[in-house]
Amino acid sequence: MNRRHFLRGTAVGVAGAAAASTFPAPALAQGRRELKMVTTWPKNFPGLGTGAERLARRITEMTDGALTVKVFAAGELVPPFESFDAVSSGTADLYHGAEYYWQGKSKAFNFFAAVPFGLTATEMNAWIHHGGGQALWDELSAGFNLKPFMAGNTGVQMGGWFNKEINSLEDYKGLKIRMPGLGGEVLRRIGAAAVALPGGEIFPALQSGAIDATEWVGPWNDLAFGFYKVTKYYYFPGFHEPGTTLGSGVNLKVWEELSASHKAAIDVAMAAENSMSLAEFNARNNDALDTLRTKHGVQLRQFSDDVLNAIGEASGQVVAEAAAGDAMTRKVYDSFLAFRKKAIAWSRLSDQAYWNARLLPFKYG
Amino acid sequence: MNRRHFLRGTAVGVAGAAAASTFPAPALAQGRRELKMVTTWPKNFPGLGTGAERLARRITEMTDGALTVKVFAAGELVPPFESFDAVSSGTADLYHGAEYYWQGKSKAFNFFAAVPFGLTATEMNAWIHHGGGQALWDELSAGFNLKPFMAGNTGVQMGGWFNKEINSLEDYKGLKIRMPGLGGEVLRRIGAAAVALPGGEIFPALQSGAIDATEWVGPWNDLAFGFYKVTKYYYFPGFHEPGTTLGSGVNLKVWEELSASHKAAIDVAMAAENSMSLAEFNARNNDALDTLRTKHGVQLRQFSDDVLNAIGEASGQVVAEAAAGDAMTRKVYDSFLAFRKKAIAWSRLSDQAYWNARLLPFKYG
Repeated sequence: MNRRHFLRGTAVGVAGAAAASTFPAPALAQGRRELKMVTTWPKNFPGLGTGAERLARRITEMTDGALTVKVFAAGELVPPFESFDAVSSGTADLYHGAEYYWQGKSKAFNFFAAVPFGLTATEMNAWIHHGGGQALWDELSAGFNLKPFMAGNTGVQMGGWFNKEINSLEDYKGLKIRMPGLGGEVLRRIGAAAVALPGGEIFPALQSGAIDATEWVGPWNDLAFGFYKVTKYYYFPGFHEPGTTLGSGVNLKVWEELSASHKAAIDVAMAAENSMSLAEFNARNNDALDTLRTKHGVQLRQFSDDVLNAIGEASGQVVAEAAAGDAMTRKVYDSFLAFRKKAIAWSRLSDQAYWNARLLPFKYG
Repeated sequence: MNRRHFLRGTAVGVAGAAAASTFPAPALAQGRRELKMVTTWPKNFPGLGTGAERLARRITEMTDGALTVKVFAAGELVPPFESFDAVSSGTADLYHGAEYYWQGKSKAFNFFAAVPFGLTATEMNAWIHHGGGQALWDELSAGFNLKPFMAGNTGVQMGGWFNKEINSLEDYKGLKIRMPGLGGEVLRRIGAAAVALPGGEIFPALQSGAIDATEWVGPWNDLAFGFYKVTKYYYFPGFHEPGTTLGSGVNLKVWEELSASHKAAIDVAMAAENSMSLAEFNARNNDALDTLRTKHGVQLRQFSDDVLNAIGEASGQVVAEAAAGDAMTRKVYDSFLAFRKKAIAWSRLSDQAYWNARLLPFKYG
């Protein structure tokens, strides 16, 4: 998932703008406050756009419309990747996106979305809420006149679709694979020809042979794009985005002017959406995976340990280099890395060990 | 974790009642509504009581006190395990506990807390929010005049503390282990002498040799009880409670009388606390595990595949038998089992595969 995925999506957003402009605003007539939420997602984009809509609806409901949140899809009010600047400057009141889209502002933002071989969704929640992450994020975002929140999570993404089996590192040499961002940089280090393509261009590129492989999100979103029609092998795990946090930033002056109860309402709605979103991705991935396997005969393949180990080594280098640029990013990286170390120790004993045990051959039910 | 853990805790609750009775209620004087929340937890019990307090505080803040939630620790208003009846009958307005405490009302409640070799926290969230679980839970609880919510999660618990190594099933024969509920029944099937002891009696029982082993919760809570002082081996994973959901039930008539905005506020606050709670358990377990290993020299041990496979087989039988009693429980069980099957397929490709990959020897950072 990357900013360039949505270039095509933007057109959809613009097409929907006429409908959006008819949005009724009775709340304003009664002296209530309307908050403009700009998003980086096409209108009703599954899981992402729909999550932003759910968040807005809930804030509006909880405050009985005293805060009425109006959602603008990508391109309706501003182009999707101007959302950050729009909220920072006060053109809009809050955004819903993913923080790695703002890495041009500071590389530190990557750590609040996803980095290769970083934290999973539940680990991110632990780091942000109870491990010092929120304070660092607040400090980083305050420099841009923003108050940031977690507001969704895709869960672990898939490793991608391939037109041949990947049995060794040799198979990555020269492989034309669509993988944007830090993940793409990692694959270039091991010899792949990683490219960034907008979402809408992936399918034809695979079909024509312009690319040999691609990553997207996970079964729910990948099924919708129909990659199973042109590629055979669906690889896991997705090392590059192990639990992508969706983020929401509120204009800091707007935030500071809110009453204590409205601050609490927004804070709580963000935390709820963060959890609802992950639950939805997991539930729909369950079903979509079932469909891909049973209806479309997709072949699941797991990357070999040799391949993953090389990718892991390159990931550590790429992430460290991303963090080396400035003091703030370094501070975030240090906190992230220290938490990651403890999280690995705990996950090894808890979810991971449990899930491994559950795969033993015993009959259940 | 079991209802009998808290018999001793109740005394703490009663001791705290005098202080609680001085709770100011200015909200009432202004015509605002006070909601009495009874809990099954001793006052400020880490993660459980403190989570209930956080939930209450947030509902109060979000509604600017229009709904002022007053928390009663175990025994302050009613004995802890009368919380369900107290809310059902309208003596209190809502409870915070764990649904398996109410299995005397219906075995179906077990599935909304934890069952041996069942769902993890993230899987529960997917099943309840997006897999049909909430509708079944609503139907079950409506029969008792209650509207139920998820309101916390301990994450995967640990397998327990043992005074000898468990290398085979033989080592379980006659083992005097403290494990209550369905987990205890599972261990009895493989030959252990499982007993239920209140939390406060575990430490002296281990010290005197009255028991050879015990489970409790996880590193955070287990460190506080000091089991490391008398036992050497800390086993994982905790098959018996792989992600215990904490539940909250609101009196159904009270719920139905609430305004749409107050319903939304409570609904959202519950979902937020469900996520915050798991994040806190994970973060604190991280730290506590570090302390147990580095300061107290605790020896971590993983149950062998043979042992886990036998426990898994017994778990499947015990859970199926618990579900066999009545039509409602059977309906819940069928939904739970179907979801569990898909969840296993997805977790195998996502979190589990990712976590396994992250343990490869590559250097990171």
